[in-house]
Amino acid sequence: MILTVTLNTALDITYGVKALRPHASHRVTEVTERPGGKGLNVARVLAALGHETAVTGFAGGPTGEQVRAGLRGTERVRDALVPVAGPTRRTIAVVDATTGDTTQLNEPGPLITPAEWAAFQESYERLLRSASAVALCGSLPPGVPVGAYATLVRAARAVSVPVLLDTSGEPLRRGIAARPDIVKPNADELAELTGSHEPLGAMKDARRRGAHSVVASLGAEGLVALTPEGEWRAPAPDRLSGNPTGAGDSAVAGLLSAWVEKLPWPDRLARAVALSAATVVAPVAGEFDRATYEDLLAKAEVRERAEAG
Amino acid sequence: MILTVTLNTALDITYGVKALRPHASHRVTEVTERPGGKGLNVARVLAALGHETAVTGFAGGPTGEQVRAGLRGTERVRDALVPVAGPTRRTIAVVDATTGDTTQLNEPGPLITPAEWAAFQESYERLLRSASAVALCGSLPPGVPVGAYATLVRAARAVSVPVLLDTSGEPLRRGIAARPDIVKPNADELAELTGSHEPLGAMKDARRRGAHSVVASLGAEGLVALTPEGEWRAPAPDRLSGNPTGAGDSAVAGLLSAWVEKLPWPDRLARAVALSAATVVAPVAGEFDRATYEDLLAKAEVRERAEAG
Repeated sequence: MILTVTLNTALDITYGVKALRPHASHRVTEVTERPGGKGLNVARVLAALGHETAVTGFAGGPTGEQVRAGLRGTERVRDALVPVAGPTRRTIAVVDATTGDTTQLNEPGPLITPAEWAAFQESYERLLRSASAVALCGSLPPGVPVGAYATLVRAARAVSVPVLLDTSGEPLRRGIAARPDIVKPNADELAELTGSHEPLGAMKDARRRGAHSVVASLGAEGLVALTPEGEWRAPAPDRLSGNPTGAGDSAVAGLLSAWVEKLPWPDRLARAVALSAATVVAPVAGEFDRATYEDLLAKAEVRERAEAG
Repeated sequence: MILTVTLNTALDITYGVKALRPHASHRVTEVTERPGGKGLNVARVLAALGHETAVTGFAGGPTGEQVRAGLRGTERVRDALVPVAGPTRRTIAVVDATTGDTTQLNEPGPLITPAEWAAFQESYERLLRSASAVALCGSLPPGVPVGAYATLVRAARAVSVPVLLDTSGEPLRRGIAARPDIVKPNADELAELTGSHEPLGAMKDARRRGAHSVVASLGAEGLVALTPEGEWRAPAPDRLSGNPTGAGDSAVAGLLSAWVEKLPWPDRLARAVALSAATVVAPVAGEFDRATYEDLLAKAEVRERAEAG
């Protein structure tokens, strides 16, 4: 089983409106909702690829109940969320039908008590015993210590479970020092972590800070990987238009599934870029188009960095 | 017991944001939520005035459950909502901390099936047997016939229960023809109903269309009542600043509570304007400030229209 951790789970709500105008009243023409938070997205993609998964993190209040209800219908995704008193957050994406643009409103998430954080860690350590890999994803809800990911990385490494960290800011800075197997920052997150706006230099710095491998999504350039086994670049396919929501989570699912299948780095990266691109073109945010995925996977060209120049 | 009907109940959610900018991502700094829909607001104010109330309408899905949970804590408000399969709507008010302005996003509400509408009517007729008055409030959810309020007004009049109608558009046009005891439109709703932008002429027209009494809220002018017993004007108090959300619902509660207490029209209007103003100044939207209410009630001057000129 692959374990994904989403400390700040969410109910992702999408509203369609004709045109968003501040200070006006709007009739919402379309409402869709689904369980969200990066680790839940990763688990859904892993499950679609045929991997057994378990999702953990926190769920509380009526919104937490809706998240759990939404997970019950998903094959190969086991709900291992830890109940908390505070309410799970909602995120609202308001899509303007006129411009196609999205305005995002994110609730902060529940306040986690020290006892709830302790209960989570106990449950996490139990889940690690049957995990082949673990992904630690997304922001921290209020109350969780900023060094939380460092603690969770150490616990995974103590029992030799490969661990991927996908977060930003101070939680990334602290987490990376605990030596995760993979971190997957984008250019902005790298710059925030290292102070350098030169991605390759920043990636090298991230490895010096503790990450065994750094896989960075550099927009149109695609994925770049600096690893103990070598350096690779997997260019993004051309002419993709669509909704980028969840593309990064699909890349994480690609890396992690190929890792537990013991595929070499070039195959991991090929899967990650193909899944990511197939997510952008899928009509539903966060899902991937299987035909596009298989097509792009067959065509993916991963080059060693020395060759790529 | 006073019965209030809210066919399109809601969970009213308020988000505080620093500044709302279309197409940007926002961290919501404050989240508050409470059961909403005009009839539920009316019932809460009636209950605060000491009246036993029952609320009916529809509730469905997880949001309906949250509305019901929110009602459980409210003394003297009995939950008589009828369960439906579709999900109760959410309304989201995004308050911009920089400008103080509010942007409103309203979900459409559940699709009501013919069987659910029939079940509601049966329950409504049972509730009428122990009602001293009934208020029919707000918009209709999808699936409910546009003549719904006419049907509900007739059922109330058939068992001699006084009925107040507070809605707009075609549901008001149809409902008024069934001869409700009171309608409570504002200037816009009167204009839409009658085609006349001259409020007094429009009020007379509304009476000709079937309303026994018309009580119109004319903004700064206050309340004007045309009734079989006479015509009155109750000016709004000066210099009120605050949140007008729920002020109209408080006026309905004032009219209806004074009606069942058998107070004459001037006392009904005095209570309505004082409650309405005390709602505007209250810090929480839809609640009223009791000290302000009592103060304004003592000072309220209701004049006969002949004198008022």
